[in-house]
Amino acid sequence: MTKLNATHDPKQRSWLESANAPDCDFPIQNLPFGVFSTPTDPVRRVGVAIGDQILDLSVLEASGLLSLGHAQVFAQPRLNTFMALGKNSWHQARAQLFALLSAETATLRDDLALRQRVLVAQADAILHLPVEVPGYTDFYSSREHATNVGSMFRDPKNALMPNWLELPVGYNGRASSVVVSGTPVRRPSGQLKAPDQARPTFGACRKLDIELETGFLIGEGNALGEPIAVDRAEDHIFGMVLLNDWSARDIQQWEYVPLGPFNAKTFATSISPWVVTMEALEPFRVQQPAQEPEPLPYLRQTGAAGFDISLEVRMQAPGAQPSVISRTSFKHMYWSMAQQLAHHTVSGCNTRVGDLMGSGTISGPTPDSCGSLLEITWNGQNPLSIDGGKRTFIEDGDTLTLAGWCQGDGYRVGFGTVTGTIEPALDATRFGAAL
Amino acid sequence: MTKLNATHDPKQRSWLESANAPDCDFPIQNLPFGVFSTPTDPVRRVGVAIGDQILDLSVLEASGLLSLGHAQVFAQPRLNTFMALGKNSWHQARAQLFALLSAETATLRDDLALRQRVLVAQADAILHLPVEVPGYTDFYSSREHATNVGSMFRDPKNALMPNWLELPVGYNGRASSVVVSGTPVRRPSGQLKAPDQARPTFGACRKLDIELETGFLIGEGNALGEPIAVDRAEDHIFGMVLLNDWSARDIQQWEYVPLGPFNAKTFATSISPWVVTMEALEPFRVQQPAQEPEPLPYLRQTGAAGFDISLEVRMQAPGAQPSVISRTSFKHMYWSMAQQLAHHTVSGCNTRVGDLMGSGTISGPTPDSCGSLLEITWNGQNPLSIDGGKRTFIEDGDTLTLAGWCQGDGYRVGFGTVTGTIEPALDATRFGAAL
Repeated sequence: MTKLNATHDPKQRSWLESANAPDCDFPIQNLPFGVFSTPTDPVRRVGVAIGDQILDLSVLEASGLLSLGHAQVFAQPRLNTFMALGKNSWHQARAQLFALLSAETATLRDDLALRQRVLVAQADAILHLPVEVPGYTDFYSSREHATNVGSMFRDPKNALMPNWLELPVGYNGRASSVVVSGTPVRRPSGQLKAPDQARPTFGACRKLDIELETGFLIGEGNALGEPIAVDRAEDHIFGMVLLNDWSARDIQQWEYVPLGPFNAKTFATSISPWVVTMEALEPFRVQQPAQEPEPLPYLRQTGAAGFDISLEVRMQAPGAQPSVISRTSFKHMYWSMAQQLAHHTVSGCNTRVGDLMGSGTISGPTPDSCGSLLEITWNGQNPLSIDGGKRTFIEDGDTLTLAGWCQGDGYRVGFGTVTGTIEPALDATRFGAAL
Repeated sequence: MTKLNATHDPKQRSWLESANAPDCDFPIQNLPFGVFSTPTDPVRRVGVAIGDQILDLSVLEASGLLSLGHAQVFAQPRLNTFMALGKNSWHQARAQLFALLSAETATLRDDLALRQRVLVAQADAILHLPVEVPGYTDFYSSREHATNVGSMFRDPKNALMPNWLELPVGYNGRASSVVVSGTPVRRPSGQLKAPDQARPTFGACRKLDIELETGFLIGEGNALGEPIAVDRAEDHIFGMVLLNDWSARDIQQWEYVPLGPFNAKTFATSISPWVVTMEALEPFRVQQPAQEPEPLPYLRQTGAAGFDISLEVRMQAPGAQPSVISRTSFKHMYWSMAQQLAHHTVSGCNTRVGDLMGSGTISGPTPDSCGSLLEITWNGQNPLSIDGGKRTFIEDGDTLTLAGWCQGDGYRVGFGTVTGTIEPALDATRFGAAL
């Protein structure tokens, strides 16, 4: 567990004024890492978001103003090289960047020519997938979400499966289709079958949904056969992102027995471009919900393992204004990230730098705090009013945006957003000569 | 679909005599690709198995004796670079190697010095994981296997789930723990719960099992949102391997609802070191079993889409002789590889070079043709006699080996084997300070 240090001082200000606004997602206390390029310099490199700017770490590194004792970890098209250096290096980079950006430090503040070389306006930049993701795992760790789904499709009196309170249920996701925020998402097609139909039909998904999630990224992995103990698990985690696990509910309902979701989830998973480090999140640590029954020893944690991250879902019809359709917090999650990682590796499974682990849909106890349209509209029974129309599930042209931030005293440590707009399904003639 | 050509001539012989034995897995008609090193030259590079030797393609390439018009696709620690060149290049490489190895060709045959540079005895080589696997998907496409499992754990009268005859059921596997044949496999630990227990306990798996599978490897992937049509699917497949999807049945039984297998399968998946190309398998194409009901149009195929690959499972107790415990054939598989790939991508999911797709356990109709101990011993009810003892599931020190080959007229196109020996579980004290 990281202790609070100077980089957590809520009173610290930057010489970059846009970073000091109380509602800015990227103050000096945050310093999230990402990968960017610009139209005039298309080479992908590592940057840190600060105020409305991006600090180009590849230039700082080349200038000798930022050094971890390794060559060129920031002149890279992904964060993996930096992440693989481990926790001490993550801390060193943060401390050096915090110092360079502090209002009291003259190095960049008073050197306009240097500032012009190292700062890029976020408005001018293209943000890329920040990491190469060798593996994507998705958990199912919100008790409210699992209860809602169990009530809807199984039995409200026994909504949770017997294993749910004993282990953080998870499954392997599809890493190839993890995309960065802003990537358009094509409505998937597949097999659909209503209960009263004798056979399935082929067509475009009619119940396209979001899943409001966060994800954490592995910095240092573990070797095959060598589990990660729960009390060491956080040392392996580099940081967190917002994650939208787009889901085709009708495809899922038909395909998922007995081996779990497949085509219903593999068409796209969107993540936010900025990775907020665990060190930046440290001040927002909270006690997770009480666990009853007490977990088996390998899942027992000491100390506060939750994080209070405010989350919001916005839905926008074409040509209309975004409407907030859900508000909740990550602090309600039953199973912690450390428990998820300890469970993931307890059988000996290895993890690798860049592995992405989704929290599972984050839902609160009321419809307006749920993390999916499935729950908000109760499988389409209770349509939702948004600016520009009513919705049960997502329609073509709709834009869905997740936002997240930790609220500090006079500042916030924000994740920015993860957003995606739905494109119409492929024309049926595209599905092979046989159609 | 590849047509038969000169490289399929069953009468062709090599100047390398060991390749001409009728029971040799690696005659001139095969030419499977792999990655190897030697104790004296630890650099990993691409080779082809021929007889009892490996032909070092990196040396052939550097000598100008093998050329695809690209620099250094064989002086690589994995096949991905070569595989990404596509089907025409795979064919060109095969044709050039076939010519070089033919008894009539003097280039290598008559140049002893050159032969000493390009040939390495298989007995002296270390074989490595042949591909970097960005994604691993496992299907469930043997009707007999799905029927056995459904009968055992659900209802013998309705053994197949309603979706089983409509689509090739599959799920995302864990790519990080795909290992090459010979890698020891540590018995996993995890949560186990007997039906009469109120809560699970933590311990070593007691029902450790194999799954006899083949896997196919993607050569050319598809872009996100662009499905692969069933009649073009084989063009994307580079070749096949043997695959053992090690499974912890007791962990699986407790964890798998509702999102599918996770820790029960993520501790290791072993594949054979030699990738047999689809072109080498062409003469062994057979009609797949009749599909009733006729699949939806996007899954309809013309022509013979099955392959007659003889498969065998051997189990060996420590200090005893191997016993053959199952014999079957890949030709019984209900869903073809082309159908699996078309289904995998129909929702828009992208695939990448090196993606591994498992067939699912391959079982025949009788216990001695089943691909898992779960089925062979009917969940431990009918112990199996092997040399050195009796078995229900796998014990520590046991070695499990899968073998596969296509029988031609006077020759065979073999896969070699995939093997693994079970190491004892980690001591319980290793599972974190809390234990």
